[in-house]
Amino acid sequence: MRFLHTADWHIGKKLHGYDLLEEQVDAFQQILTIAKKEQVDAIVVAGDLYDRSVPSVEAIEVFNKMIIEMNLQEKFPVLAISGNHDSSTRLETGGPWFIQSNFHLNTRLDQAFQPVEMENTQFFLLPYFEPISARLYFDNEEIRTIEQAMKEVVTEMKKQFKPDMKHVLVSHFFVAGSEKSDSETKLMVGGLDTVPLSLLESFDYVALGHLHGKNALQAENARYSGSPLKFSLSEMNQKKGVWIVDTKANETTFEFKEITPLRNVIQIEGSFKELTTQEFYESIDRENYLHIQLTDRAVIPNMMNQLRKIYPRVIGVERLFGREVQQKHNETKKEIKTLAPNELVAQFFSDVTGEELTRQQQVWIKENLAEIYQAERGK
Amino acid sequence: MRFLHTADWHIGKKLHGYDLLEEQVDAFQQILTIAKKEQVDAIVVAGDLYDRSVPSVEAIEVFNKMIIEMNLQEKFPVLAISGNHDSSTRLETGGPWFIQSNFHLNTRLDQAFQPVEMENTQFFLLPYFEPISARLYFDNEEIRTIEQAMKEVVTEMKKQFKPDMKHVLVSHFFVAGSEKSDSETKLMVGGLDTVPLSLLESFDYVALGHLHGKNALQAENARYSGSPLKFSLSEMNQKKGVWIVDTKANETTFEFKEITPLRNVIQIEGSFKELTTQEFYESIDRENYLHIQLTDRAVIPNMMNQLRKIYPRVIGVERLFGREVQQKHNETKKEIKTLAPNELVAQFFSDVTGEELTRQQQVWIKENLAEIYQAERGK
Repeated sequence: MRFLHTADWHIGKKLHGYDLLEEQVDAFQQILTIAKKEQVDAIVVAGDLYDRSVPSVEAIEVFNKMIIEMNLQEKFPVLAISGNHDSSTRLETGGPWFIQSNFHLNTRLDQAFQPVEMENTQFFLLPYFEPISARLYFDNEEIRTIEQAMKEVVTEMKKQFKPDMKHVLVSHFFVAGSEKSDSETKLMVGGLDTVPLSLLESFDYVALGHLHGKNALQAENARYSGSPLKFSLSEMNQKKGVWIVDTKANETTFEFKEITPLRNVIQIEGSFKELTTQEFYESIDRENYLHIQLTDRAVIPNMMNQLRKIYPRVIGVERLFGREVQQKHNETKKEIKTLAPNELVAQFFSDVTGEELTRQQQVWIKENLAEIYQAERGK
Repeated sequence: MRFLHTADWHIGKKLHGYDLLEEQVDAFQQILTIAKKEQVDAIVVAGDLYDRSVPSVEAIEVFNKMIIEMNLQEKFPVLAISGNHDSSTRLETGGPWFIQSNFHLNTRLDQAFQPVEMENTQFFLLPYFEPISARLYFDNEEIRTIEQAMKEVVTEMKKQFKPDMKHVLVSHFFVAGSEKSDSETKLMVGGLDTVPLSLLESFDYVALGHLHGKNALQAENARYSGSPLKFSLSEMNQKKGVWIVDTKANETTFEFKEITPLRNVIQIEGSFKELTTQEFYESIDRENYLHIQLTDRAVIPNMMNQLRKIYPRVIGVERLFGREVQQKHNETKKEIKTLAPNELVAQFFSDVTGEELTRQQQVWIKENLAEIYQAERGK
């Protein structure tokens, strides 16, 4: 049995306000191309199909097209689960019909114990769940953590194991010892949500979702596929892609296939003058999502607007050596009580943005303050 | 071809704050029972499956169970369209898979021109749409109203007509001459959204959704099924149910089958004293949704609480002859400037609710006013 392992699609996710749907469609097409080239027997998606429990209409349109293409047009069997970002109930609509064309989408804990059998392999599709679900399912008040729940879950699954078959678990949680990046949902402190790797040793392969880096966990029989795209600056240096997994009679092997993003997340460093020099900016792909590290310390009027004219997708600007105005911080603080309201606004603006008010902005502030005075007098 | 015609399920709708899911499940079960008893070949649902474009998780759970039972378990072919209350994109998830088991759910205008053929009948499933969709689909800038759009739509459909078959249109709009009730979405003034009956004469039967009364339109070849439940006081006297339609070779017949609501919407009239008398309230079904017409004119302290103790589902209280306090209106108005803040609040409360503040409420107001004074002084 040869399958493709992906996860954490987060359809509808935005990167610092930028819509990623186009990138997500492109990455999906690359996944399909890999699946065809590698002649896999199925595609596994280990949770977080959507980025939000109530996805936008645009995200739903994109997602619907993807699953139609993958399952109905390209005829790939699909083995998927809901992740912590998905609303299991919203996602499960259509589930019983999907099965007719070998699209298995599990969203409830109770579905996890009936494995999907394909060729030599039993797939256990375990959606993301909270301990309370396991407490109810097993009628066991003792279950308070995911670790306690997983002990019961794995015991229950093993009852279904056919000894002459391979066993794959598809799941979406944090495995102890993994490394996280910024864009994953904040996890609970204290390990309440952590599953020790030892609990998963009965499986020939564990196709994980939740963490966005493919190297988050190094284990003999378990991998995070990572997300198909970089979803934060902290994922800048990660290679994105999918695993091609083979459950052969004597061993299970897996190999990583890379995805090239339509637009990359990169970081550039330099002075404002350098970065706005034609020679420099023509040497890089300005369509990328850019995090800019400025070496200047001086205030640069209208900085963001000037940068965005050259770089359409700036996701952040950082001052490597601080900004001069910050040095005056204590000094200006003392002055605050003696400043006129319009001066106060101007100073606040420049403190926050590092820019000076334009002439038009000054006019607006003057007009608005005048209105407020008038309203106050009228009381 | 014999089919059941229903519409306007509005799953998730609330009646004056009361959740109707239990009633909706009960009405659905009655629809299924009728479908089985009448041995229909299909069930037609003419739009407004959900009450809101983003239904609650609870509504989705109920709806999913319904379509699974109707189509996958009871094996009824289903012919459905989205209505103006549905989000067409959200509803269409799963659509291409539903078809595998004869569940046709059209949510886009372009799907309406490929009829579903069953036995001797062609079904044209036309979802609710805005004129802009027709403008784009027909590439015709002239289309500004639903009437203009429908001329084109019907012309296009007629190209698909097979002369030896019967033709049924399933649609969701306002047909000229129909009567509306309170709970339907406000329709545009001036007839922009109105379809003349004459445009629909090519069809043997038009299964309509949108209006909630089965008698909203009396036509030889068209009917609103109405909603399965009473969704407002104005629907109090309507009989609710479904049509059983037969498209026979020489004629098309239809017959109404009634649904008995789990809890009815009724109106009762009397003095507060009468309504709270055991003899009276034991003579009626207090589980119903009640609109109460009070004959009293006096202020009744704590009225709503007292009524709700006896009648758990009060959807409104009306004073048939006004309230005494309203007579003093002009008089009290003059006093307002001379009242202390706590007296002002008390008077406002009694004006609005017809009740006096309880001791505890007076204490809360006193405490809160004190806090506000203190805060003001601290400025």
